[in-house]
Amino acid sequence: MKKYNFIKKQLSKTNKKNDENYVVSRIWHLLNNPDVKMITQQYIVRDVETKTYALADIYFPQINMIIEIDEPYHLTEEMVLSDSMRQHDIVQAIECEVIRIKVINDLQEMNERIDSVVLHIRQRFETMDYKVWDVEQEYNPMTYVHRGYLDATEHIAFKTVKDCCNCFGAGYKGLQGSGAKHKFQEAIDIKALKFYPNASWDNELNADEQFFTEYHTDSEFNTAYMKKRLYELRQEIALFAHVRSEFGGFEYVFKGWYKVNQKRTLELGKVCYERVSTIMPTYFEGNQEPFEKVAKAIYNHREIAFFYDEEELHRFLEKYKKAEITYEFI
Amino acid sequence: MKKYNFIKKQLSKTNKKNDENYVVSRIWHLLNNPDVKMITQQYIVRDVETKTYALADIYFPQINMIIEIDEPYHLTEEMVLSDSMRQHDIVQAIECEVIRIKVINDLQEMNERIDSVVLHIRQRFETMDYKVWDVEQEYNPMTYVHRGYLDATEHIAFKTVKDCCNCFGAGYKGLQGSGAKHKFQEAIDIKALKFYPNASWDNELNADEQFFTEYHTDSEFNTAYMKKRLYELRQEIALFAHVRSEFGGFEYVFKGWYKVNQKRTLELGKVCYERVSTIMPTYFEGNQEPFEKVAKAIYNHREIAFFYDEEELHRFLEKYKKAEITYEFI
Repeated sequence: MKKYNFIKKQLSKTNKKNDENYVVSRIWHLLNNPDVKMITQQYIVRDVETKTYALADIYFPQINMIIEIDEPYHLTEEMVLSDSMRQHDIVQAIECEVIRIKVINDLQEMNERIDSVVLHIRQRFETMDYKVWDVEQEYNPMTYVHRGYLDATEHIAFKTVKDCCNCFGAGYKGLQGSGAKHKFQEAIDIKALKFYPNASWDNELNADEQFFTEYHTDSEFNTAYMKKRLYELRQEIALFAHVRSEFGGFEYVFKGWYKVNQKRTLELGKVCYERVSTIMPTYFEGNQEPFEKVAKAIYNHREIAFFYDEEELHRFLEKYKKAEITYEFI
Repeated sequence: MKKYNFIKKQLSKTNKKNDENYVVSRIWHLLNNPDVKMITQQYIVRDVETKTYALADIYFPQINMIIEIDEPYHLTEEMVLSDSMRQHDIVQAIECEVIRIKVINDLQEMNERIDSVVLHIRQRFETMDYKVWDVEQEYNPMTYVHRGYLDATEHIAFKTVKDCCNCFGAGYKGLQGSGAKHKFQEAIDIKALKFYPNASWDNELNADEQFFTEYHTDSEFNTAYMKKRLYELRQEIALFAHVRSEFGGFEYVFKGWYKVNQKRTLELGKVCYERVSTIMPTYFEGNQEPFEKVAKAIYNHREIAFFYDEEELHRFLEKYKKAEITYEFI
């Protein structure tokens, strides 16, 4: 997986919309920074209530910024979630900075409008403590194990279910199936689910990703599974969603730490889980930490992150200064 | 017609080829010069003898430079002239500078390769006395009337047959049909022809544009027209070809000054013309020159260009220093 493949695909996705292609390519080439990750045509949530989504023209995940290109006589279409969209990763862009570029039919004026946005983006990157885009590291579970946590707001993706499990110290060399038990937390299963109709399952992740349901289309099987999950199986889930990858194929994106919601499950007649945290702690293989922890983050009586160095801790404190997270320094 | 429309169409033509789109957009945005005209996917002559053509990835007409993007496992296709290609303008790129960019699957290396080409292009523009790209002026016959000549190597295009005629001082406000008589040169007709099968005509412009033929598919009509052209009509032609425009629709591109070749006409059984000059003099309306001429250029005993200012004369002398053109200074 190479950055060049990724970026040229991002540019080409705009290929039927000439204005978009012009704007996106100009922004990319004038930013001229291979440390920047840029995603085009990213599905974002517009309205959780009505389950409406839109395609953001450009999304910069490192600085949580969206660029919208307003073409004349063409408003951004809002869409109700379709099955094909459920194969894509959907960004919770509620706290994103949104910048709009109005298309005008004049080359110099267009260039000036885009250039001022480029300047703004560059300033954001200069003033924020962002992580350099490193494709190899991004897909490597050890990156998150060393860091001490997974964060669903970062759209962390892995190529295999094995890699998902290895974030929690599983140490697998290979793995069949769509998940495994967490080796060091007895309440937790690790699950990689398809949130679009497949085989006999029709699972659903709701728009704000606060809940998800598992539903089997054979009602007898569904009832049996529901009972098993409610009364026998582990109640908590480290959730990964199977989504289309920007490199082609599919990948697994971390969505958070969920727990069975018994009341809703019985109401709906299908297993329903509620998110208890967007952040989950990672584990070294065999739970053998090669470094000493400097701190732990605690949210709602759960340990959600471990920190092995001050710098990472500082970055986390800065990002979550408004959240009700407490810290235990070691 | 706006530069922005033109350029975004140029970028979008590469839309199915992601490498091309990346390279073309990077070159355009980093050159960052709205005075530069850039054409993508330009048909160029590869071999006059075999009538083979290729699509140049990028063509800079002002500096006569072609950029070829070499994708891995993908050689530039050569094609034999097809009817659909005959609707496009074909560039005689024989003396073009050709620069190749090899695609490599690495973002930083790709950027470096493209950036060094951008530097080279920019140097060419800095050291050459090129005409600033001005879309309005480019399509205005008065631009060429004031300058004193049309030059087929410059791919000069007009929107209407009326504009073609007005290069020669016709002063038309409107015009039906595909040409008119030259008002000040009794031997010359102005003709705008389709070089692809249309109605009952199947005219052909040969690969190096040295010859063209007019052929009517009704053989009786063809013979009658041939006789008329050989023995009654004017023997010389200011030729414009009807080609697809980069703005959409069609336009008329100046191809040169031609003369009936009687021998070849009789051999082929269709009217055949041979080019006598790529350059033709323009005329003010009513042949009333508002400025005094400073010089005339003469090629093969024909006046091919008039000059009304020293600067234009200097540019011409520089461009044609190797040609057997004589000058008469006034």
